[in-house]
Amino acid sequence: MGRSGESRFAKSRVDALSDGVFAFSMTLLVLDIRLPDDLVVASAADLAAHLVSLWDRTLTYVISFFVLGAFWRSGIELRPSGEDAGRSVVHLVLVMLLFVTAVPFSSGLVGRYGHFLPAILVYAANMAVLGVLTIAMRYLDVKPGKRSLAAAAGARLPTFLASAVLSVLIALVAPRYAMYAYLLNFL
Amino acid sequence: MGRSGESRFAKSRVDALSDGVFAFSMTLLVLDIRLPDDLVVASAADLAAHLVSLWDRTLTYVISFFVLGAFWRSGIELRPSGEDAGRSVVHLVLVMLLFVTAVPFSSGLVGRYGHFLPAILVYAANMAVLGVLTIAMRYLDVKPGKRSLAAAAGARLPTFLASAVLSVLIALVAPRYAMYAYLLNFL
Amino acid sequence: MGRSGESRFAKSRVDALSDGVFAFSMTLLVLDIRLPDDLVVASAADLAAHLVSLWDRTLTYVISFFVLGAFWRSGIELRPSGEDAGRSVVHLVLVMLLFVTAVPFSSGLVGRYGHFLPAILVYAANMAVLGVLTIAMRYLDVKPGKRSLAAAAGARLPTFLASAVLSVLIALVAPRYAMYAYLLNFL
Amino acid sequence: MGRSGESRFAKSRVDALSDGVFAFSMTLLVLDIRLPDDLVVASAADLAAHLVSLWDRTLTYVISFFVLGAFWRSGIELRPSGEDAGRSVVHLVLVMLLFVTAVPFSSGLVGRYGHFLPAILVYAANMAVLGVLTIAMRYLDVKPGKRSLAAAAGARLPTFLASAVLSVLIALVAPRYAMYAYLLNFL
Repeated sequence: MGRSGESRFAKSRVDALSDGVFAFSMTLLVLDIRLPDDLVVASAADLAAHLVSLWDRTLTYVISFFVLGAFWRSGIELRPSGEDAGRSVVHLVLVMLLFVTAVPFSSGLVGRYGHFLPAILVYAANMAVLGVLTIAMRYLDVKPGKRSLAAAAGARLPTFLASAVLSVLIALVAPRYAMYAYLLNFL
Repeated sequence: MGRSGESRFAKSRVDALSDGVFAFSMTLLVLDIRLPDDLVVASAADLAAHLVSLWDRTLTYVISFFVLGAFWRSGIELRPSGEDAGRSVVHLVLVMLLFVTAVPFSSGLVGRYGHFLPAILVYAANMAVLGVLTIAMRYLDVKPGKRSLAAAAGARLPTFLASAVLSVLIALVAPRYAMYAYLLNFL
Repeated sequence: MGRSGESRFAKSRVDALSDGVFAFSMTLLVLDIRLPDDLVVASAADLAAHLVSLWDRTLTYVISFFVLGAFWRSGIELRPSGEDAGRSVVHLVLVMLLFVTAVPFSSGLVGRYGHFLPAILVYAANMAVLGVLTIAMRYLDVKPGKRSLAAAAGARLPTFLASAVLSVLIALVAPRYAMYAYLLNFL
Repeated sequence: MGRSGESRFAKSRVDALSDGVFAFSMTLLVLDIRLPDDLVVASAADLAAHLVSLWDRTLTYVISFFVLGAFWRSGIELRPSGEDAGRSVVHLVLVMLLFVTAVPFSSGLVGRYGHFLPAILVYAANMAVLGVLTIAMRYLDVKPGKRSLAAAAGARLPTFLASAVLSVLIALVAPRYAMYAYLLNFL
C-alpha cells in the first residue's frame, strides 16, 4: 500500500475483480424474488396467486439486472487504453464497485417498499452515483489529450440519469409507478 | 453506452461475466438444500429422517446444476469466432444470463412446491427460454455465411426442449413426477 | 450440445468456471458462522459467551475451507496438458463441481448437528467422492501413455481418504470428536 | 497433492481464485444492510426512520469494503515476479483468503454488536491478521536477494495496523466510536 505515486496496477486484475463483483451482484438480485420460508400453500391456484404477487419484485429485479448489465457493458467497450492502471483509477473503480454491491440492497428495498418515497430516493441516488462514476471512469480511461466529456457520457448515460430524476418526480405523486421510469432506457 | 452501432466489446470480458454468473448461480442452488434454522433434532434417527425428507429438493438441485452446466458447456465449445463482439451479441448474452440467474429461483420453487402445476410451469418456461436463447446465440456466433440452425441446435437442445414440454404434460396428471422428465437429458 | 464425439472445449473457460465455483463455495462457508438474527445480547460477557459457542462451527468452517483449498490446489498444479478438453473431461469437472457446491451444505450440517452420526456420514461421503473424483481427473488429464494412478493420487489424497474413514469410525463412538480426524491432513 | 517440494502452481489460477474470493466477500458485505423480513412499515416517515437506523451497519459496510479493496489492491501492484508459484506461497494465499472470507462475519458482528468490546476485538484481530499476512506475502513475492520488510509494509500497512490497535483502545472506553478509528486510513 506504499503511498508512492508511481505504483502501477495490473489492469487484467482490475477487470477480473470488476467482472466478479458485477456477476455476483447481478446474481444476488434474484434472492429478493422468493416466497416466505413459512408460506403455507394449499392449492395450485393459491401458489399461482402468490407468484403473481411477486410481480413488483420481479420488475425491479429485471430493471436492476439490465441496469447493472448496461454499466458493466459500458466498461468493456473496446477503447485504446494501456495494460496497467494508476492508483487513482483503481481507487475510482473501487468506489464504483461499492455502489454496484449496494444495488442488491437498494433493489430489494424498492421491491419491498417501492410504494414509499424513501425507497425510490435511495434507488435513484444509487443509480445516479453509478451513472456519474461511470462517466468519470470513461473520461479518465482515455489519454489526457483525447478526453471528451461528450464521448464519455455517450447517448445513453444522460437518458439514464434523466430516468432516475423522472422516477423521483413520479414518486412524489404516485410512488407505485416510479420504477416504470427506468423502462425508458430499454426503448 | 454510446448508441453508435460500431462499438465493439471485449469477448474475454463477456466470457468472464458469463463464467461468473454461471458459477454463482450453480453454487447458489445449494442454498435451497437446508434444514430449517429452528429445527429441533432429538436423535441420529431423527436427523436421518429429516435428511431423507430433503430428497425432492436434492433431485431438483442436481438436475438444475447439470442443466446449467450443459448450457454453460454449449457456450464454451470451440468454434471459429472473433475476439470481439457486437452490441447485439452482448445484449443477447445479458438476456440469457438473466434467465441463468433466475434458475435458483425457479429451482427453489420446484424444490418446495413441485407438487403444484404452477411451479412446474415456471421451471419449464425458464428452461425453454434458456434453450431457445442458447440456440440463437450459437447461431449468431458463427459468421453469416456459415450459419445453420441444425448445427446451432445440435442433437441435445431439441431433446432438452422436449423434456421441458414432457414435464408439463406429466404435471397435468401427476405433478410429483414431473421433474423426472428432465432425467431424459442424462441418458 | 451436439453429440459428436469430436467437440473440443476451451480449457481456460473450464478453469474459469472451476475457480469461480471454488471461490464462491469457499466464501459461502462463512455464512454458517453467524449469531441468530433475533439474538438478544445484554452485555459484553454475554456476547463473548455466544462467540465461544460458535467454536464447533468455526472449526468446521476452517477445515472445510482448507479441504476445498487443497482440492483446488491439486487442480492447478502445473502439468503438461493441452489447451482444450474433451467432452468426458468437461463432464467429469462438472460432476466434481457439483460436489464442491455441496460442501457448504454438508459443512453446515456438521457445524449444526455434528454430534449425530448421519451428519458425519454425509460430510465424509462428500469428501470421499471429491477425493476419488480428483484422483480420476488428475489421472485423465495426463496423456494416455504416461498415466499413473500413483502419480494421480500423490501422497496426500490417500491420507485424506483415510481421514474421512477415520472420522466415521470416531463418530460411531464419540461423534463430537469426529471432525478432528480431518486435522490429520494439516500435519 | 504430491508432497514433493518441486510442484509448481499456475499463478494466473491463484490470481483468479483470489479475485473471486475478494469479489464475493466484498459483495457479501451488503447482505448485512437489510431491514428485517417481517418489518411492518406504515408510512414513508416510518421507512425513513428505519433506514436511518441502518447507519451503523452502513458505516461498517463501507469501511470493510474499502479495507478489503485496499488489501486486494496491494496484491495486484505490478512487481517483478514469475508466472508460477511454489507450494508455500499458495498455502500463504489460502490462509490469507480464509481471513478475507471471515470479514463478512466480523463485519456483520460489528454492525450488529459494535457497542460491545468483543465485537471490536474480533474485527481488529481479523484486520491485524490480514495486515500481517499481506506484509508476509509481499515480502515473499520478491526474489530472495531483493527482499525488504520496509518495502513490503509500505506506508499504509503500518497505519492500518495502528488503526486496528486504536480501535481496541477506543473500545475500552467508548465502544460505540471504535470503528471510526479505521477512517484514519482514508485520510
